[in-house]
Amino acid sequence: MTGIAQLIELPEFADARGSLIVAEHGLQLPFAIERVFFVSGVGPNDTRGMHAHHACHQILVCVHGSVTARVDNGHETQTVRLDRPTLGLHMPPLTWGTQWDYSADAVLLVLNSMGYDPKDYIHDYDEFLEVVSAREAAGESS
Amino acid sequence: MTGIAQLIELPEFADARGSLIVAEHGLQLPFAIERVFFVSGVGPNDTRGMHAHHACHQILVCVHGSVTARVDNGHETQTVRLDRPTLGLHMPPLTWGTQWDYSADAVLLVLNSMGYDPKDYIHDYDEFLEVVSAREAAGESS
Repeated sequence: MTGIAQLIELPEFADARGSLIVAEHGLQLPFAIERVFFVSGVGPNDTRGMHAHHACHQILVCVHGSVTARVDNGHETQTVRLDRPTLGLHMPPLTWGTQWDYSADAVLLVLNSMGYDPKDYIHDYDEFLEVVSAREAAGESS
Repeated sequence: MTGIAQLIELPEFADARGSLIVAEHGLQLPFAIERVFFVSGVGPNDTRGMHAHHACHQILVCVHGSVTARVDNGHETQTVRLDRPTLGLHMPPLTWGTQWDYSADAVLLVLNSMGYDPKDYIHDYDEFLEVVSAREAAGESS
């Protein structure tokens, strides 16, 4: 798949006793996880996310059911259906993320490189674009 | 609840757009997570676990469905039904853990303080009891 979405394949160990899917720092994950959260019970018409982070990396894995996720780096967007538990979506800092179309049984696991810090959130899209531009002007962008 | 099981209540932030349940290092978690795995598709008559770790801490959270977990510290055992996603079960090192009676829709999330190391596993119960005794004799037990 071409596009800006950074997808991670998670190894699955399946046998007669079920399936085990793993993500480890230094292998599939570029960071140790300081915070984990999981989202469920989202209605079919609800949208979550709609923010970016200054510094926090996040990896999204839909461990049950399915959900649609869009990533936006300020220049391009890409939409991915997270419909299997072996598919991780890495959202680096300064990614505007939006999730919607949760199946009724969806559980979206989010692995975070940082603890909760309200100052790390950007909730305004215009501010997000300004921060991206400023970061690029400062030569900090890849 | 009395007993040896170390249970952790995870905060839930619920609103009209669904539920978000969180676990953060330094708050609910005594460690940063180096490895995460999740188990699903386990049959109703299957049992998993049946081992201990020398050094790795684990926290079990059933994020969908339910599962029964037993912890054994070499002296006492306790059985807990993990039937809500806000309930974490901390298994410190030298806990013999066994899980069974997975509901068909169960997803068991396991947060680990260490990366995978086969030398950290104890698969033999008699060896487990010997290691517990040796650790206690050396005064390292709490």
